[in-house]
Amino acid sequence: MTRIPRDKENDYTDAMMAARRDFATEQSGTVLHHVGQTSIDPALLPGNIEQAMGAAQVPIGLAGPLLVHGEHIDGEVFVPMATTEGTLVASYNRGMRLLRECGGVTVTIVERYMQRAPVFHFDGARDARDFGVWLDANFDGVKRAAETTTSVGKLSHIEKYSVGAMLYTRMNFTTGDAAGQNMCGKAAFAACQWIAEAYKGPLKGYTLSGAIDTDKKHSQLNTLHSRGARVVAEVVLEPEKTKQLMRATTQQLFRVRNVSHTGGMLAGTSSNGLHAANALAALFIATGQDAANVAESQASISYVDLRDDGSLYWSLTLPSLIMATFGGGTGLPTQRECLDMMGCVGEENGKGMVGRLLEITAATVLAGELSLSSAIVAGDWVSSHDELGRNR
Amino acid sequence: MTRIPRDKENDYTDAMMAARRDFATEQSGTVLHHVGQTSIDPALLPGNIEQAMGAAQVPIGLAGPLLVHGEHIDGEVFVPMATTEGTLVASYNRGMRLLRECGGVTVTIVERYMQRAPVFHFDGARDARDFGVWLDANFDGVKRAAETTTSVGKLSHIEKYSVGAMLYTRMNFTTGDAAGQNMCGKAAFAACQWIAEAYKGPLKGYTLSGAIDTDKKHSQLNTLHSRGARVVAEVVLEPEKTKQLMRATTQQLFRVRNVSHTGGMLAGTSSNGLHAANALAALFIATGQDAANVAESQASISYVDLRDDGSLYWSLTLPSLIMATFGGGTGLPTQRECLDMMGCVGEENGKGMVGRLLEITAATVLAGELSLSSAIVAGDWVSSHDELGRNR
Amino acid sequence: MTRIPRDKENDYTDAMMAARRDFATEQSGTVLHHVGQTSIDPALLPGNIEQAMGAAQVPIGLAGPLLVHGEHIDGEVFVPMATTEGTLVASYNRGMRLLRECGGVTVTIVERYMQRAPVFHFDGARDARDFGVWLDANFDGVKRAAETTTSVGKLSHIEKYSVGAMLYTRMNFTTGDAAGQNMCGKAAFAACQWIAEAYKGPLKGYTLSGAIDTDKKHSQLNTLHSRGARVVAEVVLEPEKTKQLMRATTQQLFRVRNVSHTGGMLAGTSSNGLHAANALAALFIATGQDAANVAESQASISYVDLRDDGSLYWSLTLPSLIMATFGGGTGLPTQRECLDMMGCVGEENGKGMVGRLLEITAATVLAGELSLSSAIVAGDWVSSHDELGRNR
Amino acid sequence: MTRIPRDKENDYTDAMMAARRDFATEQSGTVLHHVGQTSIDPALLPGNIEQAMGAAQVPIGLAGPLLVHGEHIDGEVFVPMATTEGTLVASYNRGMRLLRECGGVTVTIVERYMQRAPVFHFDGARDARDFGVWLDANFDGVKRAAETTTSVGKLSHIEKYSVGAMLYTRMNFTTGDAAGQNMCGKAAFAACQWIAEAYKGPLKGYTLSGAIDTDKKHSQLNTLHSRGARVVAEVVLEPEKTKQLMRATTQQLFRVRNVSHTGGMLAGTSSNGLHAANALAALFIATGQDAANVAESQASISYVDLRDDGSLYWSLTLPSLIMATFGGGTGLPTQRECLDMMGCVGEENGKGMVGRLLEITAATVLAGELSLSSAIVAGDWVSSHDELGRNR
Repeated sequence: MTRIPRDKENDYTDAMMAARRDFATEQSGTVLHHVGQTSIDPALLPGNIEQAMGAAQVPIGLAGPLLVHGEHIDGEVFVPMATTEGTLVASYNRGMRLLRECGGVTVTIVERYMQRAPVFHFDGARDARDFGVWLDANFDGVKRAAETTTSVGKLSHIEKYSVGAMLYTRMNFTTGDAAGQNMCGKAAFAACQWIAEAYKGPLKGYTLSGAIDTDKKHSQLNTLHSRGARVVAEVVLEPEKTKQLMRATTQQLFRVRNVSHTGGMLAGTSSNGLHAANALAALFIATGQDAANVAESQASISYVDLRDDGSLYWSLTLPSLIMATFGGGTGLPTQRECLDMMGCVGEENGKGMVGRLLEITAATVLAGELSLSSAIVAGDWVSSHDELGRNR
Repeated sequence: MTRIPRDKENDYTDAMMAARRDFATEQSGTVLHHVGQTSIDPALLPGNIEQAMGAAQVPIGLAGPLLVHGEHIDGEVFVPMATTEGTLVASYNRGMRLLRECGGVTVTIVERYMQRAPVFHFDGARDARDFGVWLDANFDGVKRAAETTTSVGKLSHIEKYSVGAMLYTRMNFTTGDAAGQNMCGKAAFAACQWIAEAYKGPLKGYTLSGAIDTDKKHSQLNTLHSRGARVVAEVVLEPEKTKQLMRATTQQLFRVRNVSHTGGMLAGTSSNGLHAANALAALFIATGQDAANVAESQASISYVDLRDDGSLYWSLTLPSLIMATFGGGTGLPTQRECLDMMGCVGEENGKGMVGRLLEITAATVLAGELSLSSAIVAGDWVSSHDELGRNR
Repeated sequence: MTRIPRDKENDYTDAMMAARRDFATEQSGTVLHHVGQTSIDPALLPGNIEQAMGAAQVPIGLAGPLLVHGEHIDGEVFVPMATTEGTLVASYNRGMRLLRECGGVTVTIVERYMQRAPVFHFDGARDARDFGVWLDANFDGVKRAAETTTSVGKLSHIEKYSVGAMLYTRMNFTTGDAAGQNMCGKAAFAACQWIAEAYKGPLKGYTLSGAIDTDKKHSQLNTLHSRGARVVAEVVLEPEKTKQLMRATTQQLFRVRNVSHTGGMLAGTSSNGLHAANALAALFIATGQDAANVAESQASISYVDLRDDGSLYWSLTLPSLIMATFGGGTGLPTQRECLDMMGCVGEENGKGMVGRLLEITAATVLAGELSLSSAIVAGDWVSSHDELGRNR
Repeated sequence: MTRIPRDKENDYTDAMMAARRDFATEQSGTVLHHVGQTSIDPALLPGNIEQAMGAAQVPIGLAGPLLVHGEHIDGEVFVPMATTEGTLVASYNRGMRLLRECGGVTVTIVERYMQRAPVFHFDGARDARDFGVWLDANFDGVKRAAETTTSVGKLSHIEKYSVGAMLYTRMNFTTGDAAGQNMCGKAAFAACQWIAEAYKGPLKGYTLSGAIDTDKKHSQLNTLHSRGARVVAEVVLEPEKTKQLMRATTQQLFRVRNVSHTGGMLAGTSSNGLHAANALAALFIATGQDAANVAESQASISYVDLRDDGSLYWSLTLPSLIMATFGGGTGLPTQRECLDMMGCVGEENGKGMVGRLLEITAATVLAGELSLSSAIVAGDWVSSHDELGRNR
């Protein structure tokens, strides 16, 4: 049996990382030359990685300027996007130009919570229902217990869903500038322990997580009740500029949206938007977010409306956008620099910069929707004697 | 108006990257010291990034050994995981140990295709239906046209879904060792052009992509008909070893699965598995996959069965796992090394190594499911006078 | 152009119904002999039908006794089921026997509301968010306005969901013994008018119904937040009696459930239960419910747990069961008799009988789940040298 | 213990029905006067009901004329609708008038199959995959075996979906004029028995129904692959007539559709149409269909397009419309008359009339969509200085 070298005393050192690379080379025959070429100080790694042996290098391209009218940023910003997919940066850049020419994108953070979802078990549904009543009445106690574990997280409200003899709950916390999954996990655990103690009814047990968080996966529940931030990006496309820059009319773009909405209904999709995941993955990697959260953050609802004057109102609602400017990988060197160049490090008026980051991100996603939609229109074909819209 | 420096003649050079970093510094005040610390030869970058200015460094941890019984690998392998989320590597490592102790994980690739989904427009549903009949009858012509654009991609079959006056199609291609989205895009375009020419019925036009691909987002259609590879990972957990290594009995694990399945039904989730996205994001970044495909690849169906002897059959089906050993970021330095150390570079018996990579990935995902499930059980609470399973 | 005879003065008379039948005969050549054989006094018809010409006769079978332990009934009841599908009544009857032998079914009504869902339109998402805050703060005013239209309906709470520049709301009313769709429609309209008047912010307009009610169709939202009543039926199946009566062991039943749960996840179904719709359609027709509500009422979540002693806890949660003992068809002659024979007419302790009807219905649905599951097991095949559970 | 009287020798007689009513009266105190007022000859009841005791009377209203351009009907027809919900018939009638004034509704049956879905169990996913290959290669044998059980049903094709160590199949049959659930059940059973015999690989067993049929419930799978008939109804609304008859402009109708589509995406609905279930329930009861199939038949995809000339193309696709003109309740007296008056009894050119019935039904559903959409528009409110479409 082979073993990965481990030396707890000196786990996060260049020597230890080198030893692991050597071990991997020994096992596989592959020399990990580039994997070892990292400028990260190993002392920064605890809390980010175990059994560290180096770093992956993901190319960063510079897109922008992106003109954002948010409540945490009102102006132009350049956006670093880490990706290995050709044309991605160029495509977003093109969308950003259109957004800028049309006056910029307005972004609104509607709400922002992180969740943990314990399930409580009973002998029967009636006990579960009774417990739900007690839980509402004792929210203050639950909140106090939960908040003993964190100076940042605050329990905001608890959703309750009854199934059989169980009460599925979904505890919603504000988490400051952190994404907050771990913070909420600890707080929810403390809350559950307090509940098990305080509740004198016939509680049989609890399951700390019953799948409805919904963590690292899409769910309709997330689309309805948000996970992380619910953010809306909006623009009104000016017809002439759209045509000139995108070689697509607002009418064509609108019709293609209609076809996509319908296809989404047919397919049962998480997103009637096109490809939020592209922007999200690139920004998540660049700025030290948990890239696994692309799974749920990619959900989106596109709503567009062709106005009588030919302008096209385009909105994209991201109901479960999970990002942070604190914790996770946000403190690592390249990630920190990328956050910093967008003005997302530090504080302003006593508040962190996560709002600014969310607004920039949602605007970036919208840029990509416009760009790809235009590209689809450009690839479409309409029979010569017929204008698509007129005849179908 | 600010502008990102661009010099087409010499776009992919260290100097150009430095100029962009300087520009970003000028715009933002942030010195991009670490972003510039990359060992990637800029000449490798075309096709991976535009407006390049450096690289993000994502820490890599080494997990394993993972014992995989696939059709492309049968033995132990060490797995590089790129992440900034603490405990992730440790958790997967723990799961891999259990898998190994229980005899390893069996992985099966059921099928593998990449899709592009043009929509054809007609005056009415009857014309759309007639066209569908023609399309089946003329599959060979469509295939020939599509395959003129690629030496690798082969058109396998075309799904057809009728909505109103439209026929939504979903063209399925084999794509060798590439993920193949672009390959399929070009092939589908050629197919559409041929169809528009060859079909003498009343075709009004087509939309190159009508949202049912379903690219960069989850859909039930993907879960049913796969996107990329449909891969199943299976293990039978031995009760004693499970208890000893995970501090959870197979009964407890089974019951928690049941609660999660039910929660997934309640929430309308893409995955009744727990967190495939964690493994996928870490492996996608390490090996140069398109990280945005975490959006669809994260979908999973967990099916577990507690046998009479107390052993626990556990399967995870990943219906839309999109990975490649060719193209995209797979040729970049650190990514190449990570692929290589898992034996996923080059060819074997005239075939590429994508099958091996898919098998290792699915097995890794399963390791994480076991580990997190055990952690949930450990955090659960059961009233002292009651065993959860006995009484609820 | 042909016309249906209409004589407003005397619309609901036997003569007018006969005239319409004659007209239909004239148009089609079909003599409507049986359609005219109705014992309904035409004076009862206004509010139930327009352009009446007779009645459909749907056979009623008698099932039971069903032993129900609810909060509105605790004892045996016989259930009239109107259907034209052979074996349906027999199958439910068989399930009822098992339920009875195992001590009866416990039913719990968790909550009960009817909804109407106006959408409010704004210039942008920020205005929509501001309006949401105002709406919460002015709930009392909204409630007062809504309740001017009804002496029965009470506005309980308003859900809010933000998409683009819109705020989708879902107003939840209690509606006494009525199903309450019309009651809520009127109340929501009054609420909207009051809001349009009272809100001084930049409201552009409202759409009275924006599809998220969700009326006459299934939605995940209904499954999460209920529509009509959320009702849970539970039983613990005794192993010996189950085997004897159903020729299926509790282990077999449990395993088949597991296969069905997984199939439901695969298919993206509204119900991981089997066929709630059968009981619901039969009871809805017999008791004068709106049969179209089978569309949403059929959704269910099945949760079963095999206990260590071999007994099988089986629960079925119906999250959107819409029924009434007042209004709609509940006052028509045969429907009234069917309600009456189940004790669902009149009042008890100053309260109507809708709770009793809901409890009987949910218990009936559960009877059918047990019966059909047993039938599936009976049709299954297991290779002679293998017990299914032991080997797969 | 009480018992329902049963006398197998003479089960389907007036005397036996009376005895059961007497028994119910004895148990409940309710005299079942009207329930006993049925003109159905008891000899017709076997196969439709067990433990018969009478009939429910559901009022029938006459709507129309409805102008249908189908492939089985091209002309006007009057439609009997059985319902207890006031305004329903009037509302459909209004929609039928608009359809007629706009030239009638074109209906297309795209395909029609009934399904049964056995699951095959194996030791592992690889065995399941191998079996899938065998199944394709042995389709002819399966088909022969299945068709021994029926002179009408024909096995058309088998869908295959892999999950873990299971292969979920979905066998698609044509079923003539019957809905065919039972026919398919028997045929699938015979097919499974043949497979178990013929397949020499390591098959562990099968489950006759694994939930993906999907019977009596909605699923995305049904929406994609149809269940029963996939039928499309289409109309082009003329702007002036729409405004005059419905007091809503085509622009307003289109915008409300857009809001509803988006709401449907938000809610995760089975139908972005409005209320197909209303027409279906009314027609199913009137014509002896299985009313429980409203559960799946109600799913719909609405696709509308506002053309440049202001006309509104409106399509509704019903992917799982289950109806029959043979079997079930279609032979009972009132039901037969209702079928007959629509010309849906007997044969034409050697073919039964189920196609005609499906076309009339889909057209009726569309009439209701137009009518309710117009009513929603009429109830909407737009701020006086703003036209909704112009400003939001």
